[in-house]
Amino acid sequence: MPTVADVPDRLLLGSGPSPVPPRILEALAHRTVGHLDPAFGSLQDDVAALLRATMRTANQVTFPLSATGSGGMQAMVDTLIAPGDRVVVGVCGAFGGRMADALGRAGADVVKVEAQWGTAIDTERLVEAAKEPCAALFVVHGETSTGVAQPLDGLADAVHAHDGLFLVDCVTSLAGHALDLDAAGVDAAFSGTQKCLNVPPGLAPFTVNERALSRLQRRSWYFDLQAMVDYWFADGPRAYHHTAPINMIYALHEGLRMVHEEGLESRWARHARAHEALRSALSVLGFERLAPPGEQLHSLLAVRTPDTIDEAAVRGALLREDSIEVSGGLGPLAGAAWRIGVMGEGARPEPQERLVRATARHTGGDEAAAVRALEDAWSVAA
Amino acid sequence: MPTVADVPDRLLLGSGPSPVPPRILEALAHRTVGHLDPAFGSLQDDVAALLRATMRTANQVTFPLSATGSGGMQAMVDTLIAPGDRVVVGVCGAFGGRMADALGRAGADVVKVEAQWGTAIDTERLVEAAKEPCAALFVVHGETSTGVAQPLDGLADAVHAHDGLFLVDCVTSLAGHALDLDAAGVDAAFSGTQKCLNVPPGLAPFTVNERALSRLQRRSWYFDLQAMVDYWFADGPRAYHHTAPINMIYALHEGLRMVHEEGLESRWARHARAHEALRSALSVLGFERLAPPGEQLHSLLAVRTPDTIDEAAVRGALLREDSIEVSGGLGPLAGAAWRIGVMGEGARPEPQERLVRATARHTGGDEAAAVRALEDAWSVAA
Repeated sequence: MPTVADVPDRLLLGSGPSPVPPRILEALAHRTVGHLDPAFGSLQDDVAALLRATMRTANQVTFPLSATGSGGMQAMVDTLIAPGDRVVVGVCGAFGGRMADALGRAGADVVKVEAQWGTAIDTERLVEAAKEPCAALFVVHGETSTGVAQPLDGLADAVHAHDGLFLVDCVTSLAGHALDLDAAGVDAAFSGTQKCLNVPPGLAPFTVNERALSRLQRRSWYFDLQAMVDYWFADGPRAYHHTAPINMIYALHEGLRMVHEEGLESRWARHARAHEALRSALSVLGFERLAPPGEQLHSLLAVRTPDTIDEAAVRGALLREDSIEVSGGLGPLAGAAWRIGVMGEGARPEPQERLVRATARHTGGDEAAAVRALEDAWSVAA
Repeated sequence: MPTVADVPDRLLLGSGPSPVPPRILEALAHRTVGHLDPAFGSLQDDVAALLRATMRTANQVTFPLSATGSGGMQAMVDTLIAPGDRVVVGVCGAFGGRMADALGRAGADVVKVEAQWGTAIDTERLVEAAKEPCAALFVVHGETSTGVAQPLDGLADAVHAHDGLFLVDCVTSLAGHALDLDAAGVDAAFSGTQKCLNVPPGLAPFTVNERALSRLQRRSWYFDLQAMVDYWFADGPRAYHHTAPINMIYALHEGLRMVHEEGLESRWARHARAHEALRSALSVLGFERLAPPGEQLHSLLAVRTPDTIDEAAVRGALLREDSIEVSGGLGPLAGAAWRIGVMGEGARPEPQERLVRATARHTGGDEAAAVRALEDAWSVAA
């Protein structure tokens, strides 16, 4: 019978989960307490405060939902969209497509605004579609399938003009790419823990403002946002809804503390630097970035793999021989791209050097030149 | 700023979470790997096998859903019930009521069969209601709000007569009270990790048989059971749906291994013994069990608190002064009952003695006599 201790130590440089530092694992393993314990309540208040700072929002209702990032997406659908609602969805990768799918299942009238995988969607086209009355406009800020960051400027105004909601997926961008939810006029957003927060997967950081709260749907019992508000943000005693995932919330607290200690803007800058350094090194090995200039998501580097290699075989060798995980392409990019996480503790010179050296060895590339490019980029930027 | 290290060490003898042993916390904190890593895949297969044994089912589709126990309930609703379906629901406590609520929100035609809180529902009344064609009959096996175990005999036949589904909540009973899902003819069931498995909250063990799988609803993206089957039980490569909560699955694996090591029937017997011992000791202090003979749920002892004490004040003192958590009553039992977990590592003489001694001190009861009753019951039963 296998045991957990048999699970090998990996360098997680794929699309997530990302490397979890020891202090977060230690917090995760702290002794469990009850979900109504006053000591846990203090921690909840602090998690909410740290999350507001990390999301750059003043929304009171900012907390981790008891599900993974995709559960945050489902909660957004179940809570803010009614059957028949017209919803404009930006789709230029797998995660925009996933939201369109989820909305369609919920009976929404989905209007897709599509762009080629590997590019962002023109703001003008989104604005145009959102000019017709719609309940909401949804975009993915950091498209994990392509490494593209969607510009948010100008979108809120378009949908707010007729009182629709501006909804955002910031799973892969949160704490790794510049993002100010309030400044962007976002009404509700969800994220995940296993990307730039370096916390294991299992929670969906979620925020919603007063405008969004005024139109809550309550068709899901589990994703009943009002009931969660009565637990997380009660004026008096916290009202039991479901048993919160105590230990995962411990880990999130520690992850958010690390963001706070580093400083959010320093952290964004470090991710930008790390992205550019890795791009430069991999370019020496023939891997070229997918996202056009100005559209790259710093926390995820998607590269076209050279035609001269069998990308799946090289990924397999990296995992088996070097214990390094990188992710393959999804959808139209399957077999033609790698997706490399530049997330939190993964966005540092040491893990990147391990990846660059191993990739050079497996592809017959110039290891010394690639490492030099990495070092140069880090030293210039520092 | 509070840190996780400030969260105190509690003896968790409430309705859950239950005491998490060090080896499960250690597994929880093992280094995170990717959700598509072959090493994690082996662990998933083993989790499924151990869970089948613990649930006593041959169902292939037996795995932990990425949500808490209540999320398992929501998945059951979203997956197995269509709007307009007639569903018979047994309600004799908060958790039957919760399911009726969730089904109603989903548009089901809910037929409640109710009984007084603190008793089970007459099988005949459930059979009678399920004789009329219905899509499903749902009961709570272990009602956490009252400490009552619902007999399952005869229910499957009634609903199977017209091809309806027999659905069960075994959140609090799994691995702590005798339960054989296949022998009882159960088509689908959900559980939680933070009760008799002694794993932190955050996952919903779930099982579903072929009959239930043949009528899947797919209106929820997150709770799309078919997509989860394609990840957990793929014939070929596992298909990515959402990022599994890796570390929580580590912890569940270790919790299930502990059940396996002890032996399921030994574990059931230990819980029955522990329940009776604690009942006997608390009876000396004037706390009398709510559930009638033959209807008690071994893993949760609900007792009426003596009229002579302020139960909330005593519970508060137990938490503050002794760092022991017990739960108060819910609904009609608020202010009049305690709910005490007899779950896994909490179902042993040492933690029970701590609770009995502290309770005697706070209520002016005969501490020595109560402890003697506890010891006598454990020694007789052993």
